[in-house]
Amino acid sequence: MPAIRAYAAQQAKGDLKPFEFDPGPLGDEHVEIRVTHCGLCHSDLSMLDNEWGMSKYPFVPGHEVVGTVGAIGSHVKTVTVGDRVGLGWYSESCLHCHQCLTGNHNLCPTVESTIVGRYGGFADRVRAHWLWATPLPDALDLAVAGPLFCGGVTVFNPVVQFGVLPTSRVGVVGIGGLGHLALQFLNKWGCEVTAFSSSAGKTDEAKKLGAHHVVNSRDDKEMAKLAGAFDFILVTVNVSLNWATYVNALAPRGRLHFVGAVPEPISLAAFPLIIGQKSISGSPLGSPATTATMLDFCGRHRIAPVIETFPMSKVNDALAHLRAGKARYRIVLKNDMAG
Amino acid sequence: MPAIRAYAAQQAKGDLKPFEFDPGPLGDEHVEIRVTHCGLCHSDLSMLDNEWGMSKYPFVPGHEVVGTVGAIGSHVKTVTVGDRVGLGWYSESCLHCHQCLTGNHNLCPTVESTIVGRYGGFADRVRAHWLWATPLPDALDLAVAGPLFCGGVTVFNPVVQFGVLPTSRVGVVGIGGLGHLALQFLNKWGCEVTAFSSSAGKTDEAKKLGAHHVVNSRDDKEMAKLAGAFDFILVTVNVSLNWATYVNALAPRGRLHFVGAVPEPISLAAFPLIIGQKSISGSPLGSPATTATMLDFCGRHRIAPVIETFPMSKVNDALAHLRAGKARYRIVLKNDMAG
Repeated sequence: MPAIRAYAAQQAKGDLKPFEFDPGPLGDEHVEIRVTHCGLCHSDLSMLDNEWGMSKYPFVPGHEVVGTVGAIGSHVKTVTVGDRVGLGWYSESCLHCHQCLTGNHNLCPTVESTIVGRYGGFADRVRAHWLWATPLPDALDLAVAGPLFCGGVTVFNPVVQFGVLPTSRVGVVGIGGLGHLALQFLNKWGCEVTAFSSSAGKTDEAKKLGAHHVVNSRDDKEMAKLAGAFDFILVTVNVSLNWATYVNALAPRGRLHFVGAVPEPISLAAFPLIIGQKSISGSPLGSPATTATMLDFCGRHRIAPVIETFPMSKVNDALAHLRAGKARYRIVLKNDMAG
Repeated sequence: MPAIRAYAAQQAKGDLKPFEFDPGPLGDEHVEIRVTHCGLCHSDLSMLDNEWGMSKYPFVPGHEVVGTVGAIGSHVKTVTVGDRVGLGWYSESCLHCHQCLTGNHNLCPTVESTIVGRYGGFADRVRAHWLWATPLPDALDLAVAGPLFCGGVTVFNPVVQFGVLPTSRVGVVGIGGLGHLALQFLNKWGCEVTAFSSSAGKTDEAKKLGAHHVVNSRDDKEMAKLAGAFDFILVTVNVSLNWATYVNALAPRGRLHFVGAVPEPISLAAFPLIIGQKSISGSPLGSPATTATMLDFCGRHRIAPVIETFPMSKVNDALAHLRAGKARYRIVLKNDMAG
């Protein structure tokens, strides 16, 4: 195999520069994807900066990969050369633990991440176990589908896992990379959708994306009026809000669900949870089956990330744009390396 | 109707003394229960002491009532005079809100409590809406069944609500009035049951009650060894423990559930919830349907509270016994007023 050409940082917070490495022989159960596009997710930035203390350098970001299958190992049965596929945060799991055997491959204790101890998708090629190279339905466009594989499935997964119904009244906290997809999913899911945002300027956009109502997420008085209003509130932000007001906004048996890794601990009184039989929970990205279900749902309902595209060679500009909080709503890098 | 003879406190923390009141005409939808026995619950003490700021005096405690129906209103269709019934924490709900209409009468926003703004069961008679006067199966003994109507259904309810399975591995934190019933329920439910207790002396008793394993709830090292071990952990205590170690002890998709109103806020990092798709939740007492299901289950499996009996005339001795933390495991007052 020829060397893989990628963009790597040599140290935490470093610029990304061209980097080549020999991927070695392709594993029997592995797939090699020829990357056409790769989303840029905030987690790439966190890993680049070693915020979570688990980054290794040279570090190649990229875990919202789409492209075509370039090569397959001898034991790959799901896809073949030329197939359009996507790859997200996870790239390998054991297949034989209780979680894998029950369809929860994303909860496998030894699940591996595409950019933790591996080189990711800011490259001409990237590899993964066949399990995590999910075929892309014809209805989806390679140029925009990338962010579904991380941002998309992060917010779609809890809707499936926790039985949100078309009759549910739901809230989405934060209208960003995750939230703008959640609004689309939940609107098409049939729910009554309220967006919570601290940016007054996003009201019209939120409504275009599927919100029926928009509420200021930092306005405790506004929140107090919504006591008992929601069956499910999805928190997509990474900042601490007054969570007690969100618990209060839940209907009996409601759920406040976190997919954003809020840095400070969530501190809540037991009594409101007890009286209303309420739940607080979190979830990571979804399983391969949930990812496939999401892609199918996106195709049927024309759900797509709203993206800004940069050529992969301008990855540092794209990173600066993301760092500045200017991404509306996801960034996709188009591979412009000569083939 | 003759006056109801009861035991009431005239002020917070006061002794209970004989107290008579005219109950007025019996409501069309109400049932009057001739009290044979009434459990003494820790909530009676909290209300007596006005810990929750909602007590009115004279205050008549008692919300684990059993007895026979003495009179019924003209619109009562479920029970008739002479029937054996029980009455718990709740005594009336609206029947027409969304929660009532979906079988969650216990979550009715206007649900009324037997001892909040009403006179409770430390009396010769007590009244309630027919909905909450639950018939007692023949297999259950009036002399011991009382505590099922509060302590029992408090711990049985979440097992039903959150889909605990016979294949689940469950933990019960605290082996007291609630915990000793939870151990029995979960053992008969078919689960692998671990009791968490800070009292080393309770190991044998916990095993007799149904625990397969007993662990020191305050031993963080012991807890660390149990990482990922439980699908469901039921917290029955009113004290703060190191909750992060309990979240760590949950398997993926596990639930840490509170029925004890822990006074300090529960403070937890979002990340462990997200990675393992874990939930934190609470629940109050159960609905009438859940209560009836519990009673049926108790009859079939010979589940009963372990009680100490006091004559109702010795209610102050019983209260002192409970205050001293000596109750093993529930106290029942036997009505000894002359008929």
